[in-house]
Amino acid sequence: MDRPGTTPDTGLLSPVRAAAATEAALTDTAWAQAMLDAEAALARAQSRLGTVPPGAAETITACARAGAIDLPALAVRARGAGNPVVALVEEFTAVVAAADPAAAEYVHRGSTSQDVLDTGAMLVTARALRLVRDELDRTAAALARLADAHRNTPAVARTLGQHAVPTTFGLKAAGWLVAVVDVRRRVGTLLDGGLPVQLGGAAGTLAGYLEYARPVPARAEADGDGGAYAGELIALFAAEAGLAEPVLPWHTLRTPIGDTGAVLGHAAAALGKFATDVQTLARTELAEVAEPAGAGRGVSSAMPQKRNPVLAAMIRSAALQVPSLVLTLTHCAAAAEDERPAGAWHGEWQPLREALRLVGGAACTAAELAEGLEAYPERMAANLRLTGGAVVTERLAAALAPVLGKAGAKGLVSRVAVESAGSADPLVDRLLAQAPELAEEFTAEQLERLLEPAEYTGAAEALIERALAYHRGSTRTTA
Amino acid sequence: MDRPGTTPDTGLLSPVRAAAATEAALTDTAWAQAMLDAEAALARAQSRLGTVPPGAAETITACARAGAIDLPALAVRARGAGNPVVALVEEFTAVVAAADPAAAEYVHRGSTSQDVLDTGAMLVTARALRLVRDELDRTAAALARLADAHRNTPAVARTLGQHAVPTTFGLKAAGWLVAVVDVRRRVGTLLDGGLPVQLGGAAGTLAGYLEYARPVPARAEADGDGGAYAGELIALFAAEAGLAEPVLPWHTLRTPIGDTGAVLGHAAAALGKFATDVQTLARTELAEVAEPAGAGRGVSSAMPQKRNPVLAAMIRSAALQVPSLVLTLTHCAAAAEDERPAGAWHGEWQPLREALRLVGGAACTAAELAEGLEAYPERMAANLRLTGGAVVTERLAAALAPVLGKAGAKGLVSRVAVESAGSADPLVDRLLAQAPELAEEFTAEQLERLLEPAEYTGAAEALIERALAYHRGSTRTTA
Amino acid sequence: MDRPGTTPDTGLLSPVRAAAATEAALTDTAWAQAMLDAEAALARAQSRLGTVPPGAAETITACARAGAIDLPALAVRARGAGNPVVALVEEFTAVVAAADPAAAEYVHRGSTSQDVLDTGAMLVTARALRLVRDELDRTAAALARLADAHRNTPAVARTLGQHAVPTTFGLKAAGWLVAVVDVRRRVGTLLDGGLPVQLGGAAGTLAGYLEYARPVPARAEADGDGGAYAGELIALFAAEAGLAEPVLPWHTLRTPIGDTGAVLGHAAAALGKFATDVQTLARTELAEVAEPAGAGRGVSSAMPQKRNPVLAAMIRSAALQVPSLVLTLTHCAAAAEDERPAGAWHGEWQPLREALRLVGGAACTAAELAEGLEAYPERMAANLRLTGGAVVTERLAAALAPVLGKAGAKGLVSRVAVESAGSADPLVDRLLAQAPELAEEFTAEQLERLLEPAEYTGAAEALIERALAYHRGSTRTTA
Amino acid sequence: MDRPGTTPDTGLLSPVRAAAATEAALTDTAWAQAMLDAEAALARAQSRLGTVPPGAAETITACARAGAIDLPALAVRARGAGNPVVALVEEFTAVVAAADPAAAEYVHRGSTSQDVLDTGAMLVTARALRLVRDELDRTAAALARLADAHRNTPAVARTLGQHAVPTTFGLKAAGWLVAVVDVRRRVGTLLDGGLPVQLGGAAGTLAGYLEYARPVPARAEADGDGGAYAGELIALFAAEAGLAEPVLPWHTLRTPIGDTGAVLGHAAAALGKFATDVQTLARTELAEVAEPAGAGRGVSSAMPQKRNPVLAAMIRSAALQVPSLVLTLTHCAAAAEDERPAGAWHGEWQPLREALRLVGGAACTAAELAEGLEAYPERMAANLRLTGGAVVTERLAAALAPVLGKAGAKGLVSRVAVESAGSADPLVDRLLAQAPELAEEFTAEQLERLLEPAEYTGAAEALIERALAYHRGSTRTTA
Repeated sequence: MDRPGTTPDTGLLSPVRAAAATEAALTDTAWAQAMLDAEAALARAQSRLGTVPPGAAETITACARAGAIDLPALAVRARGAGNPVVALVEEFTAVVAAADPAAAEYVHRGSTSQDVLDTGAMLVTARALRLVRDELDRTAAALARLADAHRNTPAVARTLGQHAVPTTFGLKAAGWLVAVVDVRRRVGTLLDGGLPVQLGGAAGTLAGYLEYARPVPARAEADGDGGAYAGELIALFAAEAGLAEPVLPWHTLRTPIGDTGAVLGHAAAALGKFATDVQTLARTELAEVAEPAGAGRGVSSAMPQKRNPVLAAMIRSAALQVPSLVLTLTHCAAAAEDERPAGAWHGEWQPLREALRLVGGAACTAAELAEGLEAYPERMAANLRLTGGAVVTERLAAALAPVLGKAGAKGLVSRVAVESAGSADPLVDRLLAQAPELAEEFTAEQLERLLEPAEYTGAAEALIERALAYHRGSTRTTA
Repeated sequence: MDRPGTTPDTGLLSPVRAAAATEAALTDTAWAQAMLDAEAALARAQSRLGTVPPGAAETITACARAGAIDLPALAVRARGAGNPVVALVEEFTAVVAAADPAAAEYVHRGSTSQDVLDTGAMLVTARALRLVRDELDRTAAALARLADAHRNTPAVARTLGQHAVPTTFGLKAAGWLVAVVDVRRRVGTLLDGGLPVQLGGAAGTLAGYLEYARPVPARAEADGDGGAYAGELIALFAAEAGLAEPVLPWHTLRTPIGDTGAVLGHAAAALGKFATDVQTLARTELAEVAEPAGAGRGVSSAMPQKRNPVLAAMIRSAALQVPSLVLTLTHCAAAAEDERPAGAWHGEWQPLREALRLVGGAACTAAELAEGLEAYPERMAANLRLTGGAVVTERLAAALAPVLGKAGAKGLVSRVAVESAGSADPLVDRLLAQAPELAEEFTAEQLERLLEPAEYTGAAEALIERALAYHRGSTRTTA
Repeated sequence: MDRPGTTPDTGLLSPVRAAAATEAALTDTAWAQAMLDAEAALARAQSRLGTVPPGAAETITACARAGAIDLPALAVRARGAGNPVVALVEEFTAVVAAADPAAAEYVHRGSTSQDVLDTGAMLVTARALRLVRDELDRTAAALARLADAHRNTPAVARTLGQHAVPTTFGLKAAGWLVAVVDVRRRVGTLLDGGLPVQLGGAAGTLAGYLEYARPVPARAEADGDGGAYAGELIALFAAEAGLAEPVLPWHTLRTPIGDTGAVLGHAAAALGKFATDVQTLARTELAEVAEPAGAGRGVSSAMPQKRNPVLAAMIRSAALQVPSLVLTLTHCAAAAEDERPAGAWHGEWQPLREALRLVGGAACTAAELAEGLEAYPERMAANLRLTGGAVVTERLAAALAPVLGKAGAKGLVSRVAVESAGSADPLVDRLLAQAPELAEEFTAEQLERLLEPAEYTGAAEALIERALAYHRGSTRTTA
Repeated sequence: MDRPGTTPDTGLLSPVRAAAATEAALTDTAWAQAMLDAEAALARAQSRLGTVPPGAAETITACARAGAIDLPALAVRARGAGNPVVALVEEFTAVVAAADPAAAEYVHRGSTSQDVLDTGAMLVTARALRLVRDELDRTAAALARLADAHRNTPAVARTLGQHAVPTTFGLKAAGWLVAVVDVRRRVGTLLDGGLPVQLGGAAGTLAGYLEYARPVPARAEADGDGGAYAGELIALFAAEAGLAEPVLPWHTLRTPIGDTGAVLGHAAAALGKFATDVQTLARTELAEVAEPAGAGRGVSSAMPQKRNPVLAAMIRSAALQVPSLVLTLTHCAAAAEDERPAGAWHGEWQPLREALRLVGGAACTAAELAEGLEAYPERMAANLRLTGGAVVTERLAAALAPVLGKAGAKGLVSRVAVESAGSADPLVDRLLAQAPELAEEFTAEQLERLLEPAEYTGAAEALIERALAYHRGSTRTTA
C-alpha cells in the first residue's frame, strides 16, 4: 500500500479492468513516462537539426525515467500550474542536471506544457490502443471460430424479446464478429497516422523553438522566417516520438482527441452488444450459452448454486460508462477558447484515461469471454420448438400468399398461430381445416416441411461467409 | 509507490482534486473500510435482535479495519464475482476467525454483496459530502463577505459578452453566493435522510436474514412471517450505520443514487459558473479580479510573466466532467433489470466515486479561490467608462420615453449611441441637437446624471441583501 | 400539413409521445402562449404597483393570445436576436396597438428577453409537469393494485439474469410503485415552490423596471433606492404568474433548470426500470406478463404471430434519451458566463422541451401499461420449478448451517445443486445420501418443506405493506 | 398553422436551425419520403432479379410520395407497432392498390420495418450531410480567405485567458480552417461508402426475401440455399437506393450510426471552437472582430445600443447540445440486444434527427459568420501593446539565456515583467539596470527589437501555408 489508509484507485470499483494488460500502460507512472519520452524525443529532434548538442540529447534520453519521480507529490504540486508538466520539468531538469549540468540547459527548450502533455497523451493512447488491438484480434479470432463451428446450428432469432424467426447461432456470432472487426479497423486506422505529436510552443506559433534555434549560424542565413525549420522540427519530432505529423499545432483543434473518442465509443458499442447478448442467452430460462467456468468465477456471496455471467456484466459496466466519457471529450473540444483553454483542456485528461482503461478492460474481458464461451445447440433447438411453429409463420404467410393472396395468407396464419399457442393440435391440421383450398396446392408433407425451423434460416450461411471474409480481409491488411 | 512502475491513479491527471480533503475519503481503502463498517453495523443490529451473540458482534466490529487487507490483490480477485464483496468477505472472515473462530460464523450472516456494497457506498457518500459541505460553507462565507464589501462597487454587467448596463461587483458575488447556498441546502437535505442503508438479502425479500433469525426461539412464535423482524432489522441497521431507513430494498430502485447525482450536478453547475466568471473577469483586457497569488501558483512553463487563473481552470475541468458522470448514474438506474442488474449496478461505482472526487476537489478549490479572490474596483470603473455612456442607454430610453414616446426614445438613443462610439463629443450635446424638445423637460445637468453609470444600478443593493439573508437563513438552519 | 412537403416534427420519430396529453402543452404555440402570459402577468403586476394603468394591463392581458401569431415565420425572425422574444414582442406590441395604441406603450415595459423566455419556460414546465403528475398518479394507483393483488403470488427473483431466490410478483410491482412514488413526490415538490418567475431586467439589477416606475410620484419619496419596489414587483409578478418567488434573478444561476432536470432524470430512471422489467418478464421464454392487447398494438410488419411489448419499448426509448438531455442542461448551467451567456442559455430551451415531451410520453405510456398489464401466476410458478430446487439453496445452506457449519452447509448445498441440475433425482435424497447426519435433525418432510419456493419469500408481504403505505402517504399529502 | 393551438416544433426554440437548408431535409415529410424511397428501391431491386414484375416496381416507384400521407395521424398510429413503418406500409399499400391492385401485392415484399426505417434514415442522413458539406465548403473557403488576408496581421495569442505571446490573426483563422476541413473530410468519407442500406428481413437472415423469390423457376435450381440471391439483392438494393453495401444486416450492429454520430460530434467541436473564439474576440474589451451587421441582427430587447454576437451564440447553442445526442446513439448501440432491441433502436431516431438538424443549422450559421466576419487589425495591435512588452518575455528569456543561463534569464525577465506592469518605464532600461552584462552582447536597439511583438510571430506564416495547402488538398479531392 502507498501510505497507510490511502491506497488510491487500483480498480477495486472497476473489476472490468483490474487485471487488464492496459492497466500498466495507463498508470500515473505510464503517463509521466510518456511525457518524459516526449521531452527526450524533442531533444533528439532538436539535436538532429543542430540546435541541441548530441550528447545533451543522449543524456536527456537516458535520464527520462518516470520511476525516479515521486508522483503522488507531483500530483499535489500540479495544482500550482493547473497541470503536472511544470513540476515534472523541474524534477526532470534536476535529474538531468545531476547527470550533466550542461545537458540540463537543453531540457524542454523552447517548449510549453501542452506540447509535452498532449504528445505524452498520444503516446499513452497509442501504447494502450496497441494492447486493445491485440485483445480485439483475440476476440475476433474466437468469434470467427464460433461462427464457423455453428454455421448450421439452428437457433431462435428474437426481436423485442419475442421469438421472431429461425436463424443460426453461427450468424449471431458472425454479427458480434463484424462489430468487433469494425472496431479493430478503426483502431488500426487511428494507430496508422491518426495520433500526432503536439508541437506549437507557448501559443501555437513555435516561436520559442525558433528563438532557441536562432543562434545556430548555419541555419540563420538559410531560414529567414523560420518556417522551414519549424516544418523540419515537426517532422523530426514526429519521427522520434513514433507518432504522426499534424497539419497545425492542435492545442485547441482537438480532432485527434475526437478521433480517439470516436473509436472508444465504437468499442463500447461493439463489446457492449456482445455482452448484452451473452447475458440474454445465458438467462436461466434460455440457457443457450454459458460463460467459461473458472475458479471463483461467477460466484455469489449469498446463493451457492448460482453461476453469474460476470464477464458479460463487467463488459457492460464498461460499455455504460465509456460513452459519457467520450462526450466529455467532445464537450471540451467544442469549448476550447483562444490558444489554450482554461479548463476545457484540463478536463480531457482523466476522461481520456478512464475511457482507455475501460475499453482496455472490456476488450481483455471480451477475449476471455469469446474464447471460453460455451454454446448449447440442444437448448437452442428446444427453444426453437417452444412456440410450436409460430416461429415460421412468416414463411407460411409467404408460401401461402400465391394461393390465398398476401393479406389472406397473413390473416389465416396469424389466426391459426394464436389458436395453436399452448395447444397440442398440429398446426398443419388447423391450416387445412380453415383453408381447405390449400390441399390442392400442397401435400401435408410439404406443409410440414414449411413448418420446420431448421429449413428456414434464409441466407444465414452465406452471411456468415461474408463475415468471415471480412474478418480475413481485416487480418490480412493489418498483419 | 505501490509497485515499481505501476503507481495507479493518484490525481496526477486531475489536479483539481489532488490535495482535497475528500481524496482520503474516496480511496480504495476508504471504500473497503465503509464496506467493513457495513458488515459490522449489520452484526450489531442482528445482535440487538438476539440473532447474533453480542460478543461476536463486538469481535466483528473490532476486526473491521481495511488496513489489514491487500486491496490491489482484492481488486483482481473482484473479477471472480464481478464485485469486490465476495472476496472481501472471505478475507474479512479469515481475519475474524483468527480472532475468534466462533464469531466468524456470524460474518455477513444472511447477507448479499449488494447490501454491503450499497451501504458502503452510502457511507462513503455521506462522509465525502460532509467534507464537501464544509468547503461549501467556507466558500459561501467568503462570497458573502465579498458581496457585502462590494455592495457599492459599480461594475459592468455583460450579456453575450457585450457591455449591457451597470451593476455592482457585490451583486456578481451575491449571485455566486446564492448558487453555492442552493447547493449547500441540497447537500444538507441529502445528508439529512436521503442516504439509506441497503438491506434486502439475496434478492430483496430479506429471506436470508429471516432464515438465520429463525432458530431464535423467542422470535419464532411472535413473528410468523418475519415481517416485523424485517422491519426492526432495517431500522436497527440504519441506526447502527448512521444512515437513513429505506422504504424498500433499493437494489434496482436507485433513487438514492439519483438524488446524489442530482446534487453533484448542481454543485458542478454552481461552482462551474463561479469559475467561468472569475476567468472572464481575470482576462488581461478586463483585469477586474485576480486569483490569489501563492508560491508556484499560476505559473507557466514557457512564459515567465504570466499569472494563470489556475484555480478557476481546475474548477472548470471538474465542472466539465461531472455532468457526464451523473448521466451514467441515471442511465444505469434506468437499465437496472430484475432484482439485480448485470452491469448497470457495476457501472455505477466508479462514476459515483469520480463525481464525488471532482466535486470534492472543486469545492475545496472554490473555497481557496473565494477566500483569496482579489477585486479591483478601479479597473471595474475604467471598464464602465469604456463605451462612453452606451452602458446607460437603456435608462436614457426609459427616461426620455415620456417625452418622445417609447419607440421614439429608443430610436434616438440607439442612433446617438452608434454615432458616439469612438467619438469625443459629449452624448448630452448630441441628444439635445437631435431632439431639442428635451431641453424643455431636462436640464443639461439632469441629462448628465442620467448618463452616470453608478447612478443606474437599480435594485442591486436590495438584491444583495436578499442574498445575504438567504445565506444567513441557510447557515442558521444547518448549524 | 403546415406547408407542402415540410411537415415539421409531429412525433413521427418519437411515438412514445405522439398521443400524450403533454404534447399540446409543449408545442411552439404553447411556448409562445406562455411567453405572452408572462408579458400579461408583468403588466398586471406593474399595474398593481401603479406604474401601468389598469386599463392597459387589461388590454395587454386580453390580447395575449399566441394563436394570432405566425410562429414558423417568427422562428426564422428569432435568428435576428438569437431568441424569439424580440420578434414576439414586436408582433405582440402591434396586436395590442391595434386594440389600444396607448396600452401598447406598456408592453414589455422595463423588461428583457430573458425575463420573458425564462418565465415562459417555467410556466410551460409547470403546465407539463402537472399533466405528468396525473399520469404518475394513474400509474402508481395501477401498480398499487397489482402489488396488492399479487402479494401472495410466488415468482422467481433474478439477479444477473439467473434465478436467485423466490419472491412474489407483488413485491416486484411494489418496487415499481415505490420508484414511481419517489418521482411523484419530487414532481410535487418542484411544482410546490420550485419553479420561480424570472425578473431581472437587462442584466439582473431590475434597473429598467425601476426606471419606468420612477415617474410615479407616490413612490418617488417612499423608495429612494428602489429596493422595496423591486421586492414588491418580484412578489406580485410571481403571484400573477402563479409561480414561485426567486431569491435573486437567476439569468445565470440555473438552479430551477437543474432541479427540473433532476426530476426528469428521476422519471426516466423509474419508468425505464419498470419498462425494462416488463420486457424481460414478457420474453417468450419467461412469459410471466404480457402487455395489454389492443387494436393494432404490438404488431409486426413481417411476423403475423408476434405480439411485441411496444409500450415498454417506447418507454425505454424515452428513458435512453432523457438523461443526455438533462446532462445538456447541467452543462449549460455550468458554462453560463457573465450576466447572460452567449449560447449556454440558448442551448437549454430545446433539451428542456424535449425532455419534458419524452417524460410526458413515457408517463402516459406507463399508465397505459400499468393499467393493462396482464400477469400469469401459473407461468411464474412453472418458472420457479425450472431449476429443481436450486432456487432455495440459500435457505438450505442457512437451515443446515447449525448442523454442518456455515462453510460445510454451503459446500454441500452447492455440490448437490450442481449435480441435480437436469437430473430427475429428488434433491432431498441426494442431501441425505451425502450428509446422513441430517436425518438426525430433520425429517424428510421437513427437508421437503425447506425446498418449497413458496415457503421462502421472506418478508415480501411486509415489504409490500411498506410500499402501499408509502403510496397512501404520498396520495394523502398531495390530494 | 397545423391545427389551432398546436403548431408543433418549427424551430422556435432552436433559432440556429430555423432557416437552414437542412431543415427541409429533416422534416417528418422528408423522413416519410425516404422510407418510401427505400420501399421503391427495394421493389426495383427485386424486379431486376425477376421476383417482382417490372410494371409493379414502376407503379410502386411512381406512388412513393409522402405528400399523400397524413403524417400527424401516422405519428399517433405509430404507437401501435412502436414504429411508424407498419402504418406507413398500410397507407402506402392502399395508395398503390388504388393505382394498380396487382402491384400492391409487391409492396414491402419479404421486408420488415427495420429494413425500411434504417435505409430511410441513411437516405435522410446522406441528403442532410450533402447540404452540410456544402455549408462546410462555404465556411472553409471564407476562412481560407481570412487566413490569407491576415497572414501578417499581428495579434495576441491568449492562454487561460491571459496574454501569452504574439501570433497573427491569420493563424487564428487558419486554425478554424483546419478544424473545419477535418470535419469536411470526415463528412466526405462517410458519404463515400459509410452509409449502407439495411437489408435483413424479419431478423437478419433475409429469409422472407428468399421465400418470396422461391417461386421464380429460373432461380430455384441455380440457388439452393439462396445465398447468391441474397448477395445480389443486397448489392442491387444498395445501387437502387444510392447507398453503400453492408457486410451484414446491421439491425443490432450499429456501426453506421456510430460513424455518423462521430462525424456530427466532430462538427460540433469544430464549429463550437470557431464560435467560442469569435465571441471572445468580439467582447467589448477586446473588440478585435465583429459579427456581420444585418437588418435585425444582434438586437437586444432592452438595450438599444448593443450588437450581440448572435450567430456565434446560436452555433454554440448547437455545439452544447450535439455531444449529448451523439452519446445517446452510442448508448443505444451498446444496449442493442438480440436481433432487434426493444427500445434501443427506437431511442435512436429522434437524437439522430436532432443532431443532424443542429449540425445543419450550425454549419449554415457558421458559413454566414465566416463570410461576413469583420476583423479589426488596429484593435489587435492596440491589445498587443496592452501589457507593455510582457507578451514577448518568452523571447527575451530565450535570447538572454546564452548570456545569463536559462534559469537566470527566466528569473530576470519574470522579475522585470512584474515590475513593469502598469509602469511607464521602458523595459529595456530596467533590463540593463538589473543585468548590466547584457550591454556587452546587445545594443539597446537590438533589445528594443526583441521587444517588438510583430517580430515574434514565429512560424505563423509557414503554418498558415500548411493550413491553406491542406484546404486546397481537400478541395481538390472532393471536387
